[in-house]
Amino acid sequence: MKTKQTVFYNNPPTIIGSYSIVGQKEGDGPVGKYFDKTIIDAKIGEKTFENAEIRMLTDAINGAISAAGIRKNDVDLMISGDLLNQVTSSNYVARSFDSPYLGVYSACSTMTEALNLASTFIDGGKFDTIACSTASHFATAERQYRYPLEYGCQRPPYSQWTVTGAACSILSKSGNGPKITAGVIGKVIDYGTNDLNNMGAAMAPAAMNTMAAMFKETNTLPSDFDLIITGDLGKLGSDILRKLMREQGYNLGKEYIDCGHLIFDGSQMCYQGGSGAACSGTVFNSFVLNRLNSGMYKNVAYFATGALMSTQSCYQGETIPCISHAVIVEGQK
Amino acid sequence: MKTKQTVFYNNPPTIIGSYSIVGQKEGDGPVGKYFDKTIIDAKIGEKTFENAEIRMLTDAINGAISAAGIRKNDVDLMISGDLLNQVTSSNYVARSFDSPYLGVYSACSTMTEALNLASTFIDGGKFDTIACSTASHFATAERQYRYPLEYGCQRPPYSQWTVTGAACSILSKSGNGPKITAGVIGKVIDYGTNDLNNMGAAMAPAAMNTMAAMFKETNTLPSDFDLIITGDLGKLGSDILRKLMREQGYNLGKEYIDCGHLIFDGSQMCYQGGSGAACSGTVFNSFVLNRLNSGMYKNVAYFATGALMSTQSCYQGETIPCISHAVIVEGQK
Repeated sequence: MKTKQTVFYNNPPTIIGSYSIVGQKEGDGPVGKYFDKTIIDAKIGEKTFENAEIRMLTDAINGAISAAGIRKNDVDLMISGDLLNQVTSSNYVARSFDSPYLGVYSACSTMTEALNLASTFIDGGKFDTIACSTASHFATAERQYRYPLEYGCQRPPYSQWTVTGAACSILSKSGNGPKITAGVIGKVIDYGTNDLNNMGAAMAPAAMNTMAAMFKETNTLPSDFDLIITGDLGKLGSDILRKLMREQGYNLGKEYIDCGHLIFDGSQMCYQGGSGAACSGTVFNSFVLNRLNSGMYKNVAYFATGALMSTQSCYQGETIPCISHAVIVEGQK
Repeated sequence: MKTKQTVFYNNPPTIIGSYSIVGQKEGDGPVGKYFDKTIIDAKIGEKTFENAEIRMLTDAINGAISAAGIRKNDVDLMISGDLLNQVTSSNYVARSFDSPYLGVYSACSTMTEALNLASTFIDGGKFDTIACSTASHFATAERQYRYPLEYGCQRPPYSQWTVTGAACSILSKSGNGPKITAGVIGKVIDYGTNDLNNMGAAMAPAAMNTMAAMFKETNTLPSDFDLIITGDLGKLGSDILRKLMREQGYNLGKEYIDCGHLIFDGSQMCYQGGSGAACSGTVFNSFVLNRLNSGMYKNVAYFATGALMSTQSCYQGETIPCISHAVIVEGQK
């Protein structure tokens, strides 16, 4: 069966293990208890924040491998991406694994791009066990996209806070765990937002586009899912998404939440909430999978969202193209 | 059939159309007559070099769509990547197409990463028609990785020259043209080179690693191929590769050439030759496919190679991790 954006899997891969590691702020947030590990020192004893990000990503992959009960050599393929120029963290982490590796770039929607690709490889019998991972770090993202921390720049009220963390899912052709039954590949959508701080407003139309395609192509309604979760639109972005979806004829009720909105609470001064590739990556690989594994959720639609600009494109006056890739995950029967 | 790095396709996709567009210098080079289009003005009338790169990439995709005899709406999926931070050119080009889109990052090996992914999607019956594309531009790459052109920096004799160009292949589940029968996914290899200018020496070990895996896993020898072509090792890098392959027990004879070595000649002052994602992308989508289509080549192994550092990682004293992904392409019987 083939439709325009949704890919259905005849041999749905199983998520046999996962791991999430976050910074202190994320660990103190509303879903803090679900994360596998919280780091206290944002540099984890490394010389640079970039090396700390590499260290977190390495730990997340090794943690997921352990959780899956497999060995490092059982990983047939690694798919990873992150926010840094040239997906540096992922490339440097891949050096320490002896597996074929595919680097992907989809900004904050990296986790779902990786899950989509891995599911296609497993569905087609090309690889048996695939590690999908991503990372972001507040300090590395700030100095690359905006200003180094030392600058002490004031943040606008519609901004979000890049999540410090890393996450990994291990997908397998067999085993116990939730199954990825379908993937939805996003289109690049640009409604003309050009404010580097207003990620939620920029990304909401892309989330709407992919979500509407998913409902149509799977012939479902929001109420058919126990949970519909978006990447990191934050409070403002998820309010915009609810409005845009109403215009498309879909009423997102209490089954809809946003990872960016969920990960921090108002007292943490992160304004609209969390962002960054690790935002939905860590929430999915902890809170969401925990509830799928426990049987609390039977089926989840997970839409990670990404803003695809660079600082260069913004300096040159361009608006921000955005994308959202999704996966549908079903708990064990 | 499944082996460690090589993926065999049961339903091998056909390359039904391709297009290559290059700058003046590339058009003046030894394979200039094979390119579909040569631009005279490096900005193509655009305000910035970045916009010129976006324009070239757009033209390459539209050109390949025309060459394939299909319409823009027939493209089910776009896969693209480039050298710019956050694969900007690809993301901005994707705005103007109404197809699902996957951004990939594999530096100069982007073309073969995209062909590998597209082949897996088509082999599994997920999409019918996929556009795989990449681009690079001397002026955008120089100012991002090294110095802006105005600086007039002197280049060391072991350096290569980033190719200005863009290329696209259209893969289809049916139709006439060469077929991709297998893909090989590379591992990240780092032999400790840390000189941002010496890409050939950095990437040769990664090419060796993937090439040796391919020969072993397909049970072939160099003489079994009409052409073995690497991405952009240049003269120095391809000499190193010949030596490394001899140590692995494989003698690369006259069937082996390197796109970086091929694209410029000595009089063009590009030192070791060409580099950049468009280097092997344009040579494959012109010279190589032309000879596959004419029947001159029956089977080709195409290894694009990529250096996965960022300027940030190099400033921080890191060495350069590299990768090479490959595809095996067979001419029509």
